[in-house]
Amino acid sequence: MRMGFDIGGTKIAAGIIDGEGRIRARRTAAFPKKNQETAAVDLLSSLAEEMLEELHIKLTDLAAIGAAVPGRLNRDRSRILYAYNLNFFDLPLHSILSARFPGVPVRLLNDAEAATLAEWKAGSLKGCRTAILLTLGTGVGGGLILNGSPFFGGLGHGVEPGHMILEKGGILCTCGTPGCAETLVSASRLASQGYGNAKNLIDAARKQDKKAAGLFEDYLEDLSSFLASLANLLDPERIAIGGGLSGAGEFLFDPLQKQIAEKSFFHYEYPVVPAALGNDAGMIGAALAQDIK
Amino acid sequence: MRMGFDIGGTKIAAGIIDGEGRIRARRTAAFPKKNQETAAVDLLSSLAEEMLEELHIKLTDLAAIGAAVPGRLNRDRSRILYAYNLNFFDLPLHSILSARFPGVPVRLLNDAEAATLAEWKAGSLKGCRTAILLTLGTGVGGGLILNGSPFFGGLGHGVEPGHMILEKGGILCTCGTPGCAETLVSASRLASQGYGNAKNLIDAARKQDKKAAGLFEDYLEDLSSFLASLANLLDPERIAIGGGLSGAGEFLFDPLQKQIAEKSFFHYEYPVVPAALGNDAGMIGAALAQDIK
Repeated sequence: MRMGFDIGGTKIAAGIIDGEGRIRARRTAAFPKKNQETAAVDLLSSLAEEMLEELHIKLTDLAAIGAAVPGRLNRDRSRILYAYNLNFFDLPLHSILSARFPGVPVRLLNDAEAATLAEWKAGSLKGCRTAILLTLGTGVGGGLILNGSPFFGGLGHGVEPGHMILEKGGILCTCGTPGCAETLVSASRLASQGYGNAKNLIDAARKQDKKAAGLFEDYLEDLSSFLASLANLLDPERIAIGGGLSGAGEFLFDPLQKQIAEKSFFHYEYPVVPAALGNDAGMIGAALAQDIK
Repeated sequence: MRMGFDIGGTKIAAGIIDGEGRIRARRTAAFPKKNQETAAVDLLSSLAEEMLEELHIKLTDLAAIGAAVPGRLNRDRSRILYAYNLNFFDLPLHSILSARFPGVPVRLLNDAEAATLAEWKAGSLKGCRTAILLTLGTGVGGGLILNGSPFFGGLGHGVEPGHMILEKGGILCTCGTPGCAETLVSASRLASQGYGNAKNLIDAARKQDKKAAGLFEDYLEDLSSFLASLANLLDPERIAIGGGLSGAGEFLFDPLQKQIAEKSFFHYEYPVVPAALGNDAGMIGAALAQDIK
């Protein structure tokens, strides 16, 4: 059994998973609004106690504990350099959690890394030696599986597919560079068109609302260009799409895959699939973090 | 000792290298204009004989023989599916060379793969666990080192950085898709501006020829966007530039590196270096081909 925490700016998801990646106990709690550094760690302790009690096991029965955060870690993964949404800055979270959970190895990772690891070990990318996970949300995150291992960047900065440039001279991205993929393929692009959110716009397009259908077509055009670009570089076995759009079904995935085949250099119909683990990916990936080399 | 052949549409380069990757004997010959499939193999035999004689060694003293071709191989690397410039189509080159050179293991690879392997084992990318080689010529080729190994694509199609889209709605690329990086950052773009070739244009820009300086600045802008994109995805330890532009020195590499730092998500000054092996890269990489997993 392993325990994972996905610490987000809105909520904390905690879980205990077994050797097959199945969730055996789970809890969620709102992320504290004050004294975050101490209050969040107290919360992790009490969620852990509840789950251990539920399963009638002791802390030291756990093989590993992992915690995922939306921010950047230092090179040896002992400190959170920054996680703006959590108000964590230069926090030695590894030693703090090791003291709270004595006798169990602790590992920290970034939330995008956790999601990639989870989808690879227990979800949509299981068994792949080369694969891409893209999470289309407010921004565009993701991760890579390369040469049979999760790849978190060559220098430890991280992997930022959303900040690959797709439109020379395009819209200024929040990162300060014009034309990043994020400006064209995030779910926010669809959410800002007067339909409430991306799902509603896609539902309207499916029902042949003319404006929605046109917006969806433009979006597909850009998303397929982005995925064809990535496919031309990495020639992946599979591409998984996470975030709100992953539920759009064949209406999104069928034309997307065909357009990728048209645009990609090898005209190969790279398989595009929805991510499998949804909001549990971060917590499951955190629990599996010991498996990173 | 190992022997390598770089079979190009204009010439064949052959060499014998030692355990440190140093060239101990070398030959070049024009690529045959007729009956290419048989004439080229006869030529490899005679170049091999000459070099073995020069070094006073026997064929069976060689640990390995490799051949690089500008084209696509089948999945098990036994056949050349196509190499247009060589007029090779569905050629079982592995068994042909194995029969010509009995008792020595033979390996085939693509020329971009060979150059990447050579730069990694014996050139500009030595010791890197994550690195990018880009060859800027008529087109844009290259290769990747990922998780400590050469990466030739997840499905065996290959790695095509030049066909990543950099300009939505841009110029139509030879591959049929608009806006590929190749349309913006190939050396041909500079060669087509009335200065004869890319080197002359850069020399003119260095001497403050106004038109040339403007063209060079635009080119730098696009090349740095492309490299920042790749750096955002892979966070590489080093990026090597091969092809005619690799000789442009600090005039190219200094501003390039600074612009990458400005544009990249982590604002890191990713090291950009010239490729080290020049035209020998294909032949050296071919000789080292047995080292591919």
